[in-house]
Amino acid sequence: MAVLTLGTVAFDTIETPFGSSGKVVGGAASYIAMAVSHFVRKQHLVSVVGEDFPQDFLSELSTRGACLNGLTRVEGGKSFHWAGKYHEDMVGRDTLATELNVLVGWEPKVCKSGNNADFVMLGNLDPAVQLAVLDQVTSPKLVVLDTMNFWMDSAMDNLKKIISRVDVLTVNDEEARQLTGEHFLPKAARVIHAMGPKTVVIKKGEHGALMFQEGKMFFAPAYPLEQVIDPTGAGDTFAGGFVGYLAACHGRNGEVTWEDMKQAVTVGSVMASFTCEAFGTQALAALTQEQTEARWNEYKALTAYSPITWGQH
Amino acid sequence: MAVLTLGTVAFDTIETPFGSSGKVVGGAASYIAMAVSHFVRKQHLVSVVGEDFPQDFLSELSTRGACLNGLTRVEGGKSFHWAGKYHEDMVGRDTLATELNVLVGWEPKVCKSGNNADFVMLGNLDPAVQLAVLDQVTSPKLVVLDTMNFWMDSAMDNLKKIISRVDVLTVNDEEARQLTGEHFLPKAARVIHAMGPKTVVIKKGEHGALMFQEGKMFFAPAYPLEQVIDPTGAGDTFAGGFVGYLAACHGRNGEVTWEDMKQAVTVGSVMASFTCEAFGTQALAALTQEQTEARWNEYKALTAYSPITWGQH
Repeated sequence: MAVLTLGTVAFDTIETPFGSSGKVVGGAASYIAMAVSHFVRKQHLVSVVGEDFPQDFLSELSTRGACLNGLTRVEGGKSFHWAGKYHEDMVGRDTLATELNVLVGWEPKVCKSGNNADFVMLGNLDPAVQLAVLDQVTSPKLVVLDTMNFWMDSAMDNLKKIISRVDVLTVNDEEARQLTGEHFLPKAARVIHAMGPKTVVIKKGEHGALMFQEGKMFFAPAYPLEQVIDPTGAGDTFAGGFVGYLAACHGRNGEVTWEDMKQAVTVGSVMASFTCEAFGTQALAALTQEQTEARWNEYKALTAYSPITWGQH
Repeated sequence: MAVLTLGTVAFDTIETPFGSSGKVVGGAASYIAMAVSHFVRKQHLVSVVGEDFPQDFLSELSTRGACLNGLTRVEGGKSFHWAGKYHEDMVGRDTLATELNVLVGWEPKVCKSGNNADFVMLGNLDPAVQLAVLDQVTSPKLVVLDTMNFWMDSAMDNLKKIISRVDVLTVNDEEARQLTGEHFLPKAARVIHAMGPKTVVIKKGEHGALMFQEGKMFFAPAYPLEQVIDPTGAGDTFAGGFVGYLAACHGRNGEVTWEDMKQAVTVGSVMASFTCEAFGTQALAALTQEQTEARWNEYKALTAYSPITWGQH
């Protein structure tokens, strides 16, 4: 089944306590699209870049099956650029620069075949842009929305509109708290259900992810890495792996079930772990199916244990 | 199999953003012993209290099978008292008072049957006291040590001595980092293995626990609660559930296996969740076997998912 991917395709400049990236390809849709491409070949990208954006990366996405008809290239424009510096804990970070450039005034256009996509992944962007894209999709089966605290502070009305129209919301724990005013996550999830999304995925970075549906809970740890080089894009990669896996499953059986979603969260977590091991999208680009499966098997063992027969002791 | 439990039996006064406890029974060994008592009846407590300590609580422990011959009661003495205030996040906390009282100059005496205990749980205390107790145990099968950053700052030599003599070390993530100088937990665990303990359990509070043995990793989430009243004692309860379950298992089969340990971590996590739902030890005291099993079943479902058959999509 086809996936429609919305998000930034951009440049990042990242400093961590362990090194610096220089100016590398980043942006939510770059990570999402790379992750999705490991599962389905039918993908439609909706984004905007400047004249300065490297053709190499776009060619790589094309080779991986992504249709770029929805990618606007602004002649004479400069691509979106984010610069940030991670703290010692590799979790907290300070934004050093946000150059919106071609994002300003961009009107997203979904191409003709993208309009019919079954799976829609709305990566983190202005909710107005996410709404404009969703308006162009005819009858999606599953819409996943990622967002962040910035839009809660600056565009809450539109954010609530788009949240009310999606099936799955992914936010981090602090964002879930900010959005709902509830500190404890099972309560926060219930408030979000009431806003629209039947499925809520609360990302906790190195501490894993919690997924909720009415009356159901699932927890997936993050894969414990020997060394994190750069967590930028891990959340986007998670979302891409999640949607990509579901789109791939969906060929097999008609409906997206809770069991499918649980597996998808584990796949997203495994994909995200690869992104953390390098700057930019290079780890995802180099990743083979064998490596994905091998790590997923290790990941599965991480939470596997035998049932307890109570009353025997 | 019998458990020897060392730790404080004391008073806590706790403030959280949601309420105040008043002066309640607390202390590492109070939580450990209550948790252990849900799994085995043979337990020897080594601790010290003042004349001010309520007989009710001690009677409750006796009723639950705990031998109190190793509990010193200092006539005219006052029990250890800790007062603390939790931050908004219910994780960070400030110590408002630490009154050592009868802990000062206390020389722990293990009773005759305690000397033969198979399972030894050294709760958080001065490493010199932990060493003095371990010296009195003839031939333990499994020794578990809990400690905290305070002793890393003030008594590192003795701490390293006791660490070198135990089978299992439990510390939280920040403590593991401080103890080893390694930020990433798989690396920190390897450094701790080299210090002695074959098994390392890194507690992450609301984010669960990671257990390591050479070449093996296991992750257990915290049970996601609707409301945390007070996390004080959760780590001790975890340790008590862990050791208690292993001691109970050990009657069944000769050796403490990795599989036993994995189950024990899940049991410890479930027991700790009950402690978080009330001030002091009252939730543990009221807990029934049915409630424990019911929550464990929910807990098991939290990380259960079907294997993926790769290559089918």
